[in-house]
Amino acid sequence: MLQIVVLGAGAGGGVPQWNCNCRVCAEARKGTGSVAPRTQSSIAVTADGSNWCVFNCSPDIRQQISDNPVLWPNSGAQRHSPIGSVVLTNADVDHIAGLLVLREKQAFDLFATKTVMDVLAENPIFNVLDSEFVKRRPINIGQECHVGNGVVIEPFLVPGKVALFNEARLLAEHDTLHIGDETEDTIGLKISSADGGEALFYIPGCAAMTDGLAERLKGASLVLFDGTVWRDNEMVSHGLGVKTGSRMGHMSMSGNDGSMAAFSSLDVARKVFVHINNSNHILIEGSPEREQANSAGWEIAYDGMEIEL
Amino acid sequence: MLQIVVLGAGAGGGVPQWNCNCRVCAEARKGTGSVAPRTQSSIAVTADGSNWCVFNCSPDIRQQISDNPVLWPNSGAQRHSPIGSVVLTNADVDHIAGLLVLREKQAFDLFATKTVMDVLAENPIFNVLDSEFVKRRPINIGQECHVGNGVVIEPFLVPGKVALFNEARLLAEHDTLHIGDETEDTIGLKISSADGGEALFYIPGCAAMTDGLAERLKGASLVLFDGTVWRDNEMVSHGLGVKTGSRMGHMSMSGNDGSMAAFSSLDVARKVFVHINNSNHILIEGSPEREQANSAGWEIAYDGMEIEL
Repeated sequence: MLQIVVLGAGAGGGVPQWNCNCRVCAEARKGTGSVAPRTQSSIAVTADGSNWCVFNCSPDIRQQISDNPVLWPNSGAQRHSPIGSVVLTNADVDHIAGLLVLREKQAFDLFATKTVMDVLAENPIFNVLDSEFVKRRPINIGQECHVGNGVVIEPFLVPGKVALFNEARLLAEHDTLHIGDETEDTIGLKISSADGGEALFYIPGCAAMTDGLAERLKGASLVLFDGTVWRDNEMVSHGLGVKTGSRMGHMSMSGNDGSMAAFSSLDVARKVFVHINNSNHILIEGSPEREQANSAGWEIAYDGMEIEL
Repeated sequence: MLQIVVLGAGAGGGVPQWNCNCRVCAEARKGTGSVAPRTQSSIAVTADGSNWCVFNCSPDIRQQISDNPVLWPNSGAQRHSPIGSVVLTNADVDHIAGLLVLREKQAFDLFATKTVMDVLAENPIFNVLDSEFVKRRPINIGQECHVGNGVVIEPFLVPGKVALFNEARLLAEHDTLHIGDETEDTIGLKISSADGGEALFYIPGCAAMTDGLAERLKGASLVLFDGTVWRDNEMVSHGLGVKTGSRMGHMSMSGNDGSMAAFSSLDVARKVFVHINNSNHILIEGSPEREQANSAGWEIAYDGMEIEL
């Protein structure tokens, strides 16, 4: 059996975002219950009930560990963590900055594609993770990988893009950002227990539903999927920025090309939106967007959400 | 008049630290009131009562902004922040990682020595701070610098060391870490209002009290000083690690070479320890260490502590 805890259900910036006064962020700050605050994108998974694998390591990981007693030191030793491994699905700041918090000579294994490992290597600040304690273990697309304590992953490519902070360099070198290409910059994961049982798919960033991805997800028991934006242009129409969802490498929930339409024929037993941006009104309890998603069989992740599989 | 808010009174790792089960961290988690949780090292200062300068940007900055309403967006615009500038005193992870949270195309000025700016430049991840919005403004030792909204700083060298994540490289290049040297790696700041009035000294990291530093601080109205460790070898004796305080570039509070002894003849009106490590039993309410420091005229900073000057 797998146990899953959503550590952070928000996208980059979280809810509320430090500099944002949009309706969603303002409601979250007011604490009226209309919008639950959400930290940035991360989940934790255990197959043995006591040792955990963290998937994506958000800047909020310290707060997330504090908020989830299952992740507190519990061995009786002075220094300990039930977190045995960390797996990254891309090199976005909201997925890697938390690694800087997991210093302190605590042993764990770090898994990512070679492309994402190269991004870490290009940034000497990640040397705070002492290589004597933190082993960087590259993963290969399509190859099952045991990430510790009975948790198994199978990485696969999904349409995505390079991390924001490397965009300017990529543009200078190649004259295009290749948004939506399937490269090792962005992956999805099939996560299962070494003892067998049902698997979950974790795909917090995905620019489009390809035929191959649809085939892979068909009939799945559980999918945690990119819920960044409701409409492709909502950042622009809400006056929050100039970028569309697709420009950021995220397909929208609604619309003919959206994830809800794409999943409608995939017969997935349980569908949960994660990585939800503060611009997305699905975060407002009782909103039309929330009702429409719920009617289509989608759940909206929140911090501390527990799922058993 | 200056208003100061301590955003985070802890050292790197904070209290509790993610992987630490020492007495201080365990008490902080229990929530008994014996140890107040503390986020990582940062203060905010305003001279005009509404626009703030943040000194050191800890990994906990998102939580710190959430916890301090004076730092919430308040202009009526969709995107806004009362934070107009950030000043760094060194390039330690606990002082720079929060910059990765302050993305989102929000304008502010970033001040640091050229040495610290070089560390940021060596790490492309900091390119998430779009240079169109975030201006990097090198500061010069001994030169007054207006950091915005009526706040003025005067940077000076203090004994310190290079950031942890660059230690291995420095060792490989120079065969020594030069711990305790006075270089642009670690500075202290005299902070004042452009309108005059009393100044404060902010020195969250300091390896030793030099004659020059003692002369500078003599008779000061307010000093916020490095309170990392009580005893030089407490990390070792508490079984938490192998490093001494001096190895980490921090003088201890107690002892003949400690900060309490060094300040005893300096006639400083108000003395506050900041950057306090979880190994330091001064964090325990009513502890002998706390009583001894209080008797020597020291206050122990806590998150949300407000000071007017």
